[in-house]
Amino acid sequence: MYTLLELQQIIEQEINRLELEKEPSLLYEPIRYILSIGGKRLRPALTLMACNLFSDDIINAISPALGLEVFHNFTLLHDDIMDKSVMRRGKATVHTKWNDNVAILSGDAMCIVAYQLAMKCDKEIVHDVMEVFNYTAIKVCEGQQYDMDFEQQLSVTEDEYLKMIELKTSVLIAACLKTGAILANAPVEDANLLYSFGKNIGLAFQLQDDYLDVYGEPEVFGKNIGGDIVANKKTYMLIKALDLANGDLRYHLQDWISRKSFEKDEKIKTIKGIYNQLGIDKLAKQKIEFFHRTGLENLANVNVDADRKEELFLFAEKLINRDK
Amino acid sequence: MYTLLELQQIIEQEINRLELEKEPSLLYEPIRYILSIGGKRLRPALTLMACNLFSDDIINAISPALGLEVFHNFTLLHDDIMDKSVMRRGKATVHTKWNDNVAILSGDAMCIVAYQLAMKCDKEIVHDVMEVFNYTAIKVCEGQQYDMDFEQQLSVTEDEYLKMIELKTSVLIAACLKTGAILANAPVEDANLLYSFGKNIGLAFQLQDDYLDVYGEPEVFGKNIGGDIVANKKTYMLIKALDLANGDLRYHLQDWISRKSFEKDEKIKTIKGIYNQLGIDKLAKQKIEFFHRTGLENLANVNVDADRKEELFLFAEKLINRDK
Repeated sequence: MYTLLELQQIIEQEINRLELEKEPSLLYEPIRYILSIGGKRLRPALTLMACNLFSDDIINAISPALGLEVFHNFTLLHDDIMDKSVMRRGKATVHTKWNDNVAILSGDAMCIVAYQLAMKCDKEIVHDVMEVFNYTAIKVCEGQQYDMDFEQQLSVTEDEYLKMIELKTSVLIAACLKTGAILANAPVEDANLLYSFGKNIGLAFQLQDDYLDVYGEPEVFGKNIGGDIVANKKTYMLIKALDLANGDLRYHLQDWISRKSFEKDEKIKTIKGIYNQLGIDKLAKQKIEFFHRTGLENLANVNVDADRKEELFLFAEKLINRDK
Repeated sequence: MYTLLELQQIIEQEINRLELEKEPSLLYEPIRYILSIGGKRLRPALTLMACNLFSDDIINAISPALGLEVFHNFTLLHDDIMDKSVMRRGKATVHTKWNDNVAILSGDAMCIVAYQLAMKCDKEIVHDVMEVFNYTAIKVCEGQQYDMDFEQQLSVTEDEYLKMIELKTSVLIAACLKTGAILANAPVEDANLLYSFGKNIGLAFQLQDDYLDVYGEPEVFGKNIGGDIVANKKTYMLIKALDLANGDLRYHLQDWISRKSFEKDEKIKTIKGIYNQLGIDKLAKQKIEFFHRTGLENLANVNVDADRKEELFLFAEKLINRDK
């Protein structure tokens, strides 16, 4: 069996070997660029890991795995335009390096390339693979739209938020795992259990991201701590705080959110203090652990020898114990 | 056999019956909107016509035909953002009615919906149908990129221009016809002849569009005559004129192109006069007739009784004899 690291390396190699056209260069150069600036290749590696659970031969899963990675990067490319993000993985975003039009069109081409790659599999299973792919692709768009909607909404409920991150983040992780199982001709129940495993650890992962923005160690988290707080981003932490705060504390929180001018560190410190008072840190931890545990149960129920699942368990463990 | 009109009506009906989600509304409402504001549904009708050549039963071709129409509308939606077009088919474009972000994301969702619909066909031929679809989709993006590139280029050759309009317009028309043939299990040679037919009449159609901008009757052409001239659009007419003009005439043409302020009607009249002097009208007509004739030969060679091909011949005839 392959380790996660080996699979990530296989994917990296295959990404570098992708045969894209050269001309028109403004269409293809941005695709090569965004694919070259990395990322951890976790999604396609998960596809290969899921396939490897059932089959020692993972070669047939490589192209669909690449399709899922290219699709993921396509969504990042277009999200960056919509979110007006200047940097991605420490490099200029495509629309910053070129312009919006180049980013829109090369993104479109990437989506098509993703489909081309995803479809390259045995004729007998292409229908099942593409059913998952299509469903996931549209759900990811829905998630991004809800995310943008929330920016304009005065209040967002916990349920709405969980649904949004499920669509925007978790369904793709779930789909990567299920696709790997389908490509190995795994039983439907096992494919579905892997889907649930992915959905749950995806949720745990995203909530962990929200948590670490407040409680992470700056040196290890990489991102600036408190960025979400400064931007009033409607994360799980803020939504829960707005839900629970009463009286003076609520007034205090609302006041800080509505301030147009403030000292960043003071805002971070104050709002973190409010979270502490409300016990948001514990609530978030509980939620993360709930989804993590549920995910592990899903994986435990997959009808495969425990030692074959070891690498996926390790992966889930690393995800939850990360501090970055 | 069905007439073109009947097939257009079938497509219109099916477009109205498309089952799209309701929420998030900012994702799906723009899709419903752009699909509802019409267009002639020629592309999907061509898919059904091609299918109908070989089979009386066209029911299996409807979903892929819709997929091609949705894909076409997706490209219009994103092209309108890139071209900053305010109106489309007499109505506000999506990015004008909503905003750029809504147009980007609902366009992305449309592309995925297009794939979903295109894939809904017999398992035995889904691979062939999607091969054509994928190839075409990426070529249409290449065409749009070349079109945008040309705006920045000082000079464009006739060959470059013909390649661009082939990619941007003709390959999709060709693909619609070929897909219909594949869905009717037609012989490969016939499917390929229909592809060539579509490519050639597509080229004739686009060149006719360039011609009518200068020589069309304002009352019937619908668009404002001379719009391309006013905007210095690098159409076949201008490219050919820049290619052929010498001495004083060249100086005169370049002078008008470079003027920042001018009286529109005067510019149109002057440049049309230059085209007349250079015989661009005749050259364009010859080119249009060449592609039209070549297309008709392709269709004539399709191994199907002549009477079954009558409707497609009529269609090609109408396309070339249109004055709008």
